[in-house]
Amino acid sequence: MALVKLIEYKDASPQVRAVYDDIMKTRGVDWINNFWKVLANDPAELARIWNNVKQVMAPGALDPLVKEMVYVAVSATNACEYCTYSHTAGARKKGMTDAMFMELMAVVGLANETNRIANGLRPEVDPQFK
Amino acid sequence: MALVKLIEYKDASPQVRAVYDDIMKTRGVDWINNFWKVLANDPAELARIWNNVKQVMAPGALDPLVKEMVYVAVSATNACEYCTYSHTAGARKKGMTDAMFMELMAVVGLANETNRIANGLRPEVDPQFK
Amino acid sequence: MALVKLIEYKDASPQVRAVYDDIMKTRGVDWINNFWKVLANDPAELARIWNNVKQVMAPGALDPLVKEMVYVAVSATNACEYCTYSHTAGARKKGMTDAMFMELMAVVGLANETNRIANGLRPEVDPQFK
Amino acid sequence: MALVKLIEYKDASPQVRAVYDDIMKTRGVDWINNFWKVLANDPAELARIWNNVKQVMAPGALDPLVKEMVYVAVSATNACEYCTYSHTAGARKKGMTDAMFMELMAVVGLANETNRIANGLRPEVDPQFK
Amino acid sequence: MALVKLIEYKDASPQVRAVYDDIMKTRGVDWINNFWKVLANDPAELARIWNNVKQVMAPGALDPLVKEMVYVAVSATNACEYCTYSHTAGARKKGMTDAMFMELMAVVGLANETNRIANGLRPEVDPQFK
Amino acid sequence: MALVKLIEYKDASPQVRAVYDDIMKTRGVDWINNFWKVLANDPAELARIWNNVKQVMAPGALDPLVKEMVYVAVSATNACEYCTYSHTAGARKKGMTDAMFMELMAVVGLANETNRIANGLRPEVDPQFK
Repeated sequence: MALVKLIEYKDASPQVRAVYDDIMKTRGVDWINNFWKVLANDPAELARIWNNVKQVMAPGALDPLVKEMVYVAVSATNACEYCTYSHTAGARKKGMTDAMFMELMAVVGLANETNRIANGLRPEVDPQFK
Repeated sequence: MALVKLIEYKDASPQVRAVYDDIMKTRGVDWINNFWKVLANDPAELARIWNNVKQVMAPGALDPLVKEMVYVAVSATNACEYCTYSHTAGARKKGMTDAMFMELMAVVGLANETNRIANGLRPEVDPQFK
Repeated sequence: MALVKLIEYKDASPQVRAVYDDIMKTRGVDWINNFWKVLANDPAELARIWNNVKQVMAPGALDPLVKEMVYVAVSATNACEYCTYSHTAGARKKGMTDAMFMELMAVVGLANETNRIANGLRPEVDPQFK
Repeated sequence: MALVKLIEYKDASPQVRAVYDDIMKTRGVDWINNFWKVLANDPAELARIWNNVKQVMAPGALDPLVKEMVYVAVSATNACEYCTYSHTAGARKKGMTDAMFMELMAVVGLANETNRIANGLRPEVDPQFK
Repeated sequence: MALVKLIEYKDASPQVRAVYDDIMKTRGVDWINNFWKVLANDPAELARIWNNVKQVMAPGALDPLVKEMVYVAVSATNACEYCTYSHTAGARKKGMTDAMFMELMAVVGLANETNRIANGLRPEVDPQFK
Repeated sequence: MALVKLIEYKDASPQVRAVYDDIMKTRGVDWINNFWKVLANDPAELARIWNNVKQVMAPGALDPLVKEMVYVAVSATNACEYCTYSHTAGARKKGMTDAMFMELMAVVGLANETNRIANGLRPEVDPQFK
């Protein structure tokens, strides 16, 4: 159970509804997921996060599917259950296949492994990398 | 200073040299970075990690540049200094521009932000994501 | 399900009951939460942790509500589900409103974001900060 | 050494200078720290992060010193060296004494300890906390 | 619910079955746990991880029970629920008692505490340790 | 540079000196490492942490070398540079060889890898583990 109440569309203020409407329109869906419903307890915070997501996840130097897979990679590294489910769904919608997902998790696993081996054995950063 | 000695090519056993040679050949470089030199204190471990890197980072369902950028994303999330330097260098060699790197870090930052907001407010995973 | 059994008050040794009694008296409650019941499998460890909590969370240079909110901030950062629920309850009992909680999570989110951007782009620490 | 170049004020575009000016004015300082100089490689990202910092760290339901100490707590938990130095300096400027800093770190330490004990022994969340 | 399907023995390809058979034989059990069933969506990845586990967790300079307890220590630190349950079960099978488990968690807790105090107060590494 | 001053023995209060003396006597050394010198800015906190270390790291159900290696495992996982150096030195003093250290890091690496694969693919915990 969430630690704050879920703000449903029908109970939302016009300010919150405007963000909900923009989320649904931007994503082409007809429902709002729970992450936004808890954020809506602070309408300014809801707007802040949504505007960040729209700006950062828009097509740019990287394509949106790559960005969504990076999001999944970070979420799995951080043990965020909600984010892993929601961004895996998002990545699949953008075209991630099971084969891509399995391979993504292999890279995430390996990076987490060698990160800790480096943090434990403490080799100095080679001057060539600087 | 590393917590174990660095095994230089000239001092390495034939078993270690074989891995070093394969690293240099596979990557098209003529030097070995410090990560491998500390691993070489245990030749079987050196071979294990290298074989994993070769298998996981090879082209597959994801392209090698995407994989390298995911590696950077995980390394920054985990505060691994060595890995951030070495894999950023690796990603640049594969074609990552400054614009792509900046955008990658924006996604990494945002994912780390919303991961913690979700872990703090604890919305339940929507059934649509399961 | 917990990985060790829960030690209920009625089944507890006098040594464990003495800690349970002190917890209930100090906090003004009439029940013991599960964290202490699992710790009670090692009575010396139960006493150690409780004594640390009493010492560290007591009023001092920082007020108890601020300390409890810092606890929530760390727990959300670490993805500790149990701790997020229990310390959010604790902070609310000490006066944290929903508005304060939402704002706390905004700070936690932002700090997690900029932490990773700094860990990824690796600016040197300015001499002015040292 | 940073992984991207530092954008100095004298070399900055008008768009970047406008953000730098706002940072210096808002904070009452006459220099820009390295975090912003690396972000300035992507002017839109520089503006995004600065606007977030201004909005989230402004006085609200929590006072700015508490927010800055929460930032330090998260940065220490995440092993972000740059952020720990910069936000400790920020908190001191807002009034954090050595006694408050030591006590803050005691809370951060304890929270990190009990987070892992809970994550290891896995007590169920008590219904009273939900 | 897992994010990819579980590959049951009866539905598995000969390549996957060969790994499943080796897992059951090596561990002296007659069932396959879910971790392997999700990995089996990518048979090469299943084989890779299993071969790593077999190599790394085999008796060597450290005894298998110590290794399994280190695995539990890392899993609790990382908030990995699945891994904490599965490796605690593994450690118990190898001889870990409740007293050992409680003591292990005390060490894990303390290390997590002092790690963050050091990361926050930032003492320099003493030359004697280098 | 540390974020608080180092309290040297010659400048320490009797209360701090008593802890320093106990540390040196207990460990059979004639110097105090920097971690304690920063903690000494709050003598009660110095005593608290030292008493915890003495209690938790004493011989018990686990032998002291195993405990020290678990400490190193956690420190590498958390990217704590100071702790990795100091506890590796501590483990070596208690008998950890290079072969044991290399093997320890292999386990730490593998655990960090599979932790994230489990957190990403989200297999349910098997009822047999509960």
